[in-house]
Amino acid sequence: MTGPRYTKLAQSLPATVPFVGPEAQERAMSRPFAARLGANENIFGPSPKAIAAMEQAASGIWMYGDPESHDLRHALADHHGVTPQNIVVGEGIDGLLGYLVRLLVEQGDSVVTSDGAYPTFNYHVAGFGGVLHKVPYHDDAEDLPALLTKAAEVDAKLVYFANPDNPMGSWRSGADIVAQLDNIPDGCVLLIDEAYIELAPEGTAAPVDINDPRVIRMRTFSKGYGMAGARVGYAMGEADFIRSFEKIRNHFGMNRAAQAGALAALKDADWLAETQVKVAEARDTITGIAAKFGLKALPSATNFVAIDCGRDATYAKSILDGLVARGVFVRMPFVEPQNRCIRLSCGPSEALALFDEALEDVLAELG
Amino acid sequence: MTGPRYTKLAQSLPATVPFVGPEAQERAMSRPFAARLGANENIFGPSPKAIAAMEQAASGIWMYGDPESHDLRHALADHHGVTPQNIVVGEGIDGLLGYLVRLLVEQGDSVVTSDGAYPTFNYHVAGFGGVLHKVPYHDDAEDLPALLTKAAEVDAKLVYFANPDNPMGSWRSGADIVAQLDNIPDGCVLLIDEAYIELAPEGTAAPVDINDPRVIRMRTFSKGYGMAGARVGYAMGEADFIRSFEKIRNHFGMNRAAQAGALAALKDADWLAETQVKVAEARDTITGIAAKFGLKALPSATNFVAIDCGRDATYAKSILDGLVARGVFVRMPFVEPQNRCIRLSCGPSEALALFDEALEDVLAELG
Repeated sequence: MTGPRYTKLAQSLPATVPFVGPEAQERAMSRPFAARLGANENIFGPSPKAIAAMEQAASGIWMYGDPESHDLRHALADHHGVTPQNIVVGEGIDGLLGYLVRLLVEQGDSVVTSDGAYPTFNYHVAGFGGVLHKVPYHDDAEDLPALLTKAAEVDAKLVYFANPDNPMGSWRSGADIVAQLDNIPDGCVLLIDEAYIELAPEGTAAPVDINDPRVIRMRTFSKGYGMAGARVGYAMGEADFIRSFEKIRNHFGMNRAAQAGALAALKDADWLAETQVKVAEARDTITGIAAKFGLKALPSATNFVAIDCGRDATYAKSILDGLVARGVFVRMPFVEPQNRCIRLSCGPSEALALFDEALEDVLAELG
Repeated sequence: MTGPRYTKLAQSLPATVPFVGPEAQERAMSRPFAARLGANENIFGPSPKAIAAMEQAASGIWMYGDPESHDLRHALADHHGVTPQNIVVGEGIDGLLGYLVRLLVEQGDSVVTSDGAYPTFNYHVAGFGGVLHKVPYHDDAEDLPALLTKAAEVDAKLVYFANPDNPMGSWRSGADIVAQLDNIPDGCVLLIDEAYIELAPEGTAAPVDINDPRVIRMRTFSKGYGMAGARVGYAMGEADFIRSFEKIRNHFGMNRAAQAGALAALKDADWLAETQVKVAEARDTITGIAAKFGLKALPSATNFVAIDCGRDATYAKSILDGLVARGVFVRMPFVEPQNRCIRLSCGPSEALALFDEALEDVLAELG
C-alpha cells in the first residue's frame, strides 16, 4: 500500500505556517487574551452598514457568490476612476499574492523583497519554487531604490514593496514611488502592497497609470475597512494583466456575504473617515504610553505601531512574552534590526489601557 | 515598457471560467431568474442555527478566522470518529481540489477522471500542467473499475471519482467502492468527491480506513448543509497526507463567519434530517413533472435531478434555453451521452411549480 506521489517541489517544502494565530496561543494558555492587539486587525471594526449587509446575506448563503464579483468590482472601479477590467477581486491579499506568484514564478525564477517584510508573500514564492532575494530595510523602511537595483541584478520577475510597510508602519510618498517606475527592469513587475493605504496620509498612494503593465497594486477590506475575517481583497492593474488571473483563480472562491459586506463598507465613506480619526488617536495614545516608559514609538501610517524597545531582539522578545503572559496579544518583527521592536494594533482606549498596565508591570519585572 | 513575464504554463492557459454564474446570465437578460434551479445549490438553505451563528459573527469579522479552523476541525473529527489530524478545512471543495492537484501534479503528470465529470477539477489539473485522461460514463454513472484500469495504464498520480455523481445524480454503494481499493495502482491516489453524500441513501459513503494513504475524501457544507456561498469544505484522509496541505494552503483563507456557520450547521442534525426529507420529496416532485410530459427523471442521490429529454443534446439545449428565457435557471451536462439531459436543483414547491409551467410551455412551443 503506497502513498501519494508528491511533486518534487511539494516534497521539498516544509509544513510551515506564516503565522501562528492568536486562537492557537489562547488554546495553549487555556484562556483568552484580554486584549487582541497582535494580528494587525482593525479592532474598531467594520461599518455598521457592512455588518448589516453581512447579516442580511446570511440567509441567502445557500447561493454561491457571484464568480465575477460584478457589483463590488464595478463599485471599486468607480471609486478608483478605472474600469472594471482593471480590477480582480480575490480571497484577501493573501489569496491574490498566491495567484500573482503562480502566474509569474516558476522553479528557479528570481523574486525580490525586503528582509523582514510580509512572510506570506515569501511563503507563496517558496510554494511555487521561486528564489527569493532579500534587501535590507533602510531606516526602518522598505528601500525601493535598492529593491529595484537588486531586481536588475538578479533578473527578477517580481518585486514586493509594501507602502505603507508592515511591520514597521513606515511609508513613502506616492510621487516618490512613481518617480522610480522607470527603474523597474524590463520584464519585471513591481507589486505594491497597499493593504494599509486608507490609514496613510494623503499622497501616500502611488498615482500609477492604470495602463502601466509594470505595476500591480493590491488593496484589502481587512485593514482600514475592518473586515479581516471576511477575506476580501483586490488587485488593480493593466487590463490584460488583470485578465490573466482568470486563468487560475478560484472563480467560485468568494464568500457571498463578504462580497455584500465589502460593497456596503466601500459605500460608507463616513465610517472610514471616523476610523481614520480613531486610528490616528490610538497611534498617539500608543506613542504616549511608549514615551512614558522611555520607549520610542515609530511614526506609523497604518493601524499598528512598532515600538522600539531600545535594545536587542532578546529584550523585545522578553517584553512581548511578558505582555502575552498578562493577556495582551502583540507580535514583533522577525529579523534584525527591526526585531528590536514590538508591534501592536490600534484599538479602543480600554484595550490600550490594558497594554499600558501590562507594559508597566513587565518593565518593572525586567528592571 | 514591457509587461509581466508569465510562466510558460500560464502563457498556455486560456482565461476560461468553469461555469458562468447565474448573476452574469441575469445581467445579460436584464432581469433576475424567477427560479434559481441551475447552480447545484440547496434552495432549502442552511439551518437557522447556522444563519444565527453567521449573523452573530458579522460584528466580529474584524478578526481573522482561526487559521487552524480548530473548533470546526475537532467537531468534524468527532462527527466522523477520526482525529483532527485526519481533516483539513478549506475554501470549499473547489479550493481543496486546487491544493490537492498542486501537491501531486506537475507538468506532464497523468490524472484520470470521467468524461463529463466536475469541470472545476479539470480546470485545476490544466492549471498545474497535468495531462487529463477521460473515461466514459457507464450507464450514466462514473465507472470506477474503468477509472482504475485507465489509471494503471497511464501511471496516473490522481483519479477523480464523485459519489454521488454530478451531473447525473448516480451513486454506488460504499461497500462496492471499498472492495475496489486494492485495484488502485501503486503511487496513485483515489479522490472520492462526496459533496452530495449527506443526501444519498445510507451505505453510499465509502467506509474507507482513515489510515489508508491511497484515498482522500472531500466533503462540503455547500450541498446538504445549504451553505454554498460560505465556502467551507474539508478533506479527510491519512494524517501525513492531510498534513501536506499545510505546505501550500492559504492558512488565513477562511471566512470567520463561515467557520462559525459550518460549526453550527454540523451540530444541527435535525435540520439536516429535515433537508433530507425535503430533498427526497422534491426529487419525487421533479420526477412526476418530468413523467407528466413524457420525460424521464434519472434516479438521484443528490439535491438535483437529471431529466433525460429523450433525444440529443440539441433538443435538451433547446428545452434549457426555453426554460432560461422563461426565467427558470437550469443547466445541462457538457458531453455526450449525458447531454441529452437537463439538470435542475431540488427546491420548494413554488420554484418547482414555476419549472412545471415553464416546461409545459417550452414543450408546447417545441412541438
